[in-house]
Amino acid sequence: MTALNFGLIGFGYWGPNLARNFGAQENCAVSWICDLSPARQKQATASWPAARTTGRLEDVLEDPEVHAVLIATPVSTHFEIAKRAIEAGKHVFIEKPMTHTSAEAQALIELAEKHQRVLAVDHTFLFTGAVRKMKEMLDSGELGDLLYFDSVRINLGLFQHDINVLFDLGPHDLSIADHLFPVKPIALRAMGACHCGQKHENLVYLHLEFENGMVAHFHWNWLAPVKIRHTLLCGTKKMIVYDDMAASEKVKVYDKGIVVSQLDQDSLAKFRVDYRVGDMVAPKLDQREALAAEAAHFADCVRNNKTPLADGHAGLRVVRMLEAAQESLRKGGERIVL
Amino acid sequence: MTALNFGLIGFGYWGPNLARNFGAQENCAVSWICDLSPARQKQATASWPAARTTGRLEDVLEDPEVHAVLIATPVSTHFEIAKRAIEAGKHVFIEKPMTHTSAEAQALIELAEKHQRVLAVDHTFLFTGAVRKMKEMLDSGELGDLLYFDSVRINLGLFQHDINVLFDLGPHDLSIADHLFPVKPIALRAMGACHCGQKHENLVYLHLEFENGMVAHFHWNWLAPVKIRHTLLCGTKKMIVYDDMAASEKVKVYDKGIVVSQLDQDSLAKFRVDYRVGDMVAPKLDQREALAAEAAHFADCVRNNKTPLADGHAGLRVVRMLEAAQESLRKGGERIVL
Amino acid sequence: MTALNFGLIGFGYWGPNLARNFGAQENCAVSWICDLSPARQKQATASWPAARTTGRLEDVLEDPEVHAVLIATPVSTHFEIAKRAIEAGKHVFIEKPMTHTSAEAQALIELAEKHQRVLAVDHTFLFTGAVRKMKEMLDSGELGDLLYFDSVRINLGLFQHDINVLFDLGPHDLSIADHLFPVKPIALRAMGACHCGQKHENLVYLHLEFENGMVAHFHWNWLAPVKIRHTLLCGTKKMIVYDDMAASEKVKVYDKGIVVSQLDQDSLAKFRVDYRVGDMVAPKLDQREALAAEAAHFADCVRNNKTPLADGHAGLRVVRMLEAAQESLRKGGERIVL
Amino acid sequence: MTALNFGLIGFGYWGPNLARNFGAQENCAVSWICDLSPARQKQATASWPAARTTGRLEDVLEDPEVHAVLIATPVSTHFEIAKRAIEAGKHVFIEKPMTHTSAEAQALIELAEKHQRVLAVDHTFLFTGAVRKMKEMLDSGELGDLLYFDSVRINLGLFQHDINVLFDLGPHDLSIADHLFPVKPIALRAMGACHCGQKHENLVYLHLEFENGMVAHFHWNWLAPVKIRHTLLCGTKKMIVYDDMAASEKVKVYDKGIVVSQLDQDSLAKFRVDYRVGDMVAPKLDQREALAAEAAHFADCVRNNKTPLADGHAGLRVVRMLEAAQESLRKGGERIVL
Repeated sequence: MTALNFGLIGFGYWGPNLARNFGAQENCAVSWICDLSPARQKQATASWPAARTTGRLEDVLEDPEVHAVLIATPVSTHFEIAKRAIEAGKHVFIEKPMTHTSAEAQALIELAEKHQRVLAVDHTFLFTGAVRKMKEMLDSGELGDLLYFDSVRINLGLFQHDINVLFDLGPHDLSIADHLFPVKPIALRAMGACHCGQKHENLVYLHLEFENGMVAHFHWNWLAPVKIRHTLLCGTKKMIVYDDMAASEKVKVYDKGIVVSQLDQDSLAKFRVDYRVGDMVAPKLDQREALAAEAAHFADCVRNNKTPLADGHAGLRVVRMLEAAQESLRKGGERIVL
Repeated sequence: MTALNFGLIGFGYWGPNLARNFGAQENCAVSWICDLSPARQKQATASWPAARTTGRLEDVLEDPEVHAVLIATPVSTHFEIAKRAIEAGKHVFIEKPMTHTSAEAQALIELAEKHQRVLAVDHTFLFTGAVRKMKEMLDSGELGDLLYFDSVRINLGLFQHDINVLFDLGPHDLSIADHLFPVKPIALRAMGACHCGQKHENLVYLHLEFENGMVAHFHWNWLAPVKIRHTLLCGTKKMIVYDDMAASEKVKVYDKGIVVSQLDQDSLAKFRVDYRVGDMVAPKLDQREALAAEAAHFADCVRNNKTPLADGHAGLRVVRMLEAAQESLRKGGERIVL
Repeated sequence: MTALNFGLIGFGYWGPNLARNFGAQENCAVSWICDLSPARQKQATASWPAARTTGRLEDVLEDPEVHAVLIATPVSTHFEIAKRAIEAGKHVFIEKPMTHTSAEAQALIELAEKHQRVLAVDHTFLFTGAVRKMKEMLDSGELGDLLYFDSVRINLGLFQHDINVLFDLGPHDLSIADHLFPVKPIALRAMGACHCGQKHENLVYLHLEFENGMVAHFHWNWLAPVKIRHTLLCGTKKMIVYDDMAASEKVKVYDKGIVVSQLDQDSLAKFRVDYRVGDMVAPKLDQREALAAEAAHFADCVRNNKTPLADGHAGLRVVRMLEAAQESLRKGGERIVL
Repeated sequence: MTALNFGLIGFGYWGPNLARNFGAQENCAVSWICDLSPARQKQATASWPAARTTGRLEDVLEDPEVHAVLIATPVSTHFEIAKRAIEAGKHVFIEKPMTHTSAEAQALIELAEKHQRVLAVDHTFLFTGAVRKMKEMLDSGELGDLLYFDSVRINLGLFQHDINVLFDLGPHDLSIADHLFPVKPIALRAMGACHCGQKHENLVYLHLEFENGMVAHFHWNWLAPVKIRHTLLCGTKKMIVYDDMAASEKVKVYDKGIVVSQLDQDSLAKFRVDYRVGDMVAPKLDQREALAAEAAHFADCVRNNKTPLADGHAGLRVVRMLEAAQESLRKGGERIVL
């Protein structure tokens, strides 16, 4: 198995998790940690003595021993860093959201293709046992056709001064939804509110329409007294409740559904709708840390030239939804065609 | 205390609850039960042997001993029955939603004023210990200014063939919201979906805007595997979670909030937002059955010529929101100014 | 189907439930309601106009049209009433606990056998969907061998002045346990406390030993701030959590267990114990009211001369455990052999 | 502030937590890590490059720069290591349970007194926000007199081959109880079971008696399908539910209680017991990691010659209860006087 060296760019909130998980993969090492802040460089040295630290991106990109860079910097810098990395011949793993604009995401996809580099986006939730189980059940047809997806992700969170709650919490759910949905949304509306005299939304509702009548709805909120991560995934055959705050049994599969019967022609009502109630199953979920599985997957893609589960196109689709949602917010909830 | 006789019109799902609660008030009797179905008349006789039963509305309205009628028939018949009852000199208590259209509601208000009759709408939730406690806290200023209201009312419910989920579940939350909000909404958007080949929405999201930046959002759903009644009421000083499915501690008051500090002029960010976390209190709630309290209140209004807590104007406001939401649904989520 | 007439003795807390459920069975009627209190007789007449009311037991027992009596009086009177009823040729359905002493229970069993009358004890929980499902799983071998049973039944309850919490709450769990256990206990210990200056225990812990190494443990408590009904039923193959306070999914079956492996002879430890974790299933439960199912079962036993699920012997076994537990309490927790 | 150097003995499950928390205290360092296993020494070096590692206890005890040793080895070795450390002039911090026998604990107390060394036992739970809040409320008299303490600590746990569940899970609850109780127990009974062919109990119930009528009861279990940490603490004025598995609101204080009224002399019952129900408050809890607070406290005791909150006497009291419980287990639940 080829040895892989990673250069980590950005050592703020998420960077240490990347260092820990990518460095722990078989025959892998984090050889550089780059951060503009001398204090963070110092922390990096203390925690990862085997990695060299620097404030200069060039140090990483010019090192021929570095195979891939992991980008965990503020979103506004993703494009520039990723572009330079790809041009320097590195494979790239970028924090979500992939870029600030869809044009940037599109440009990175093309650049990565041209240079034949692996381009992956850190849609961590795709690697959780819960989302993998739901995907498996969807793909097997066990749920039937999807009818709706509803997700609530709220808590008392620090208001961020550079982004709104859409860009902060939205990528989690949008990447899950993008991964699970068999079809892609055709339009959306977003409604929000800026409280406490802020200019960024701390509360956003997003509504997605699909061609086949399916809908998806999201509630993101920094100003809620309780932490809720609660998702409903309703199919014609079965329904799922995914509660990420549950200590166990995060995914509950309800064998419940609707049975529509045709009634007599003479009847006033043309049909009758009954419901069917069966067992509930909480399937055993893989308990491995999602980021560890994701790091292993990225190393495999780099070594064997595979396409990542969350590639540039997945990253782009999420950025497009964020971009359109932002436009709808600006227009007070107007419908934006995707 | 004057003896009061009630004539109950409609003995379907809700009628028996009205009979039980209005009949149990001091010096009150349900003297007539009127229903078109002979089977229901028979049930009424069995349960309430003291009441006379009939299929003819006239029997009730022409009885001079009847002081008030309780209308628990399908919504499409509310206006006609209430109109005739008021014209016959009866006080009126109508199931929610008050009427099918706001024009009808307006007409009833005027008619009741002209005939000096009490006109009440059965907004039962206003009489629950939970809503009364929240109203009390709001009015006292303890919550500060309201920032948002978010309510989820979903379950696996029988699809009804004459109305959609908006008219079925919506009146509960809209009457609560109307009662609690110090200001009234200026516009709304509603998005929905009709699944299983039905023509009525089984899933509706409603978003209300207010002049002062407050928003309210509702999720109503007949196709959810779990029963949820979960409301967030967020003020600048305190935040409430109202979980009507909780066996106890339905209302939780969180002493949590946001603290915005001005930062130095030189700082890149102009402000800093911190949050404050204190105790949570689940106040003791009045456990009396809401409908019993409401029946007592209506009897008091009739006897002492008082204005009901949920009068025709409250009923009208709810009908107006339903009407506008229905229009928005039809237009695919377009903004409707109220 | 033979018409059956029931005579209900005792119209206090539980009597009305018996009247409602036994009276609702096909071709069954409650023809007499007997209670010493004139106020309760009046209530009985109001609710069950078709039944005659009386304060004299003889009126019921001397009526040849009465086939069976339902005894819902204080436990100290059970024996005398049941004895006279059987001697008068009536079948008997007695509230739990069956009698105050095991000698009385034994005497009733013999009397019923002699007179060939059906003798049933109201172990209502046996007829709940939850207990029936657990019994079914146990009998099928799906749980493996039983290892332990642990039940917590606590709440803030009115202290009763004639009985302690053992006799109040104990019969519920003991009847469930007796029904589920394939073998019977050989000894027990009970520890308790009398608080607030009372002479009856408001808090009791009971521990049962079985020959095969199985144990059962119970916590009954009138002085708990929260209402808990939580039972663990652990087998060698699967484990059950039965939470009777859950609004849904009252029974959860965990595919979890222990795997013991023999280790090398050289190893210090002789064995290794691992655990196995699989899916959790909350099976669909029959939602019918338990007492309705029990009433139907009793009517069937009377009509077709069948032995009730909870017959005199089941009632006796529960009384024996209560009696022995009471003795252990008196002796400060000494072991009482059954 | 004097610089303090700690020698850590044992780098298994708990040792790394001690290293992280004691090393993070102001002006404190972990200068030695001692473990018999070369593999663990290697891990220690990787994680704590600043500490020297060794397999020889002497290396640590003979280093005059070491002020205190932290003992995180198997319980059977605690006494010998602590004894040698104290004799070498070191202050000592020992994992719970303090020693295997009360004689050993007594000997360590005397030795520490003689050498004037600080002797602390790692009763971590005493430093959690939850236990500190409960202690504060008890001491203030807010709860009234204690009536009972009931704790359930169960989960699916690996069976350990050297100790039973009493010695594994028991010290947690016994140290909490010892800390909270104003009086000490006078006697106990313990009942248990050994399943799966093991010789150590995997299920233990312990019952403590107190002179004033208070009781305490514990359920410890390695063979439960769900993880429960649920404690009831009931006083004459208020009652507490402490749920350590709750993500928030771990401590709930119920303003509930019993009101006993004297009745008329003529009344059959001499008294009437009612209950009082008020608000529930979940107080804000200190969120600091308990072990960090405990490390700070130990450093303070060493520097300023203070008596630790959990000193040798507290450790001894817990060991005495374990020892007596073990004896009761052996005797099938016989009462052991403390």
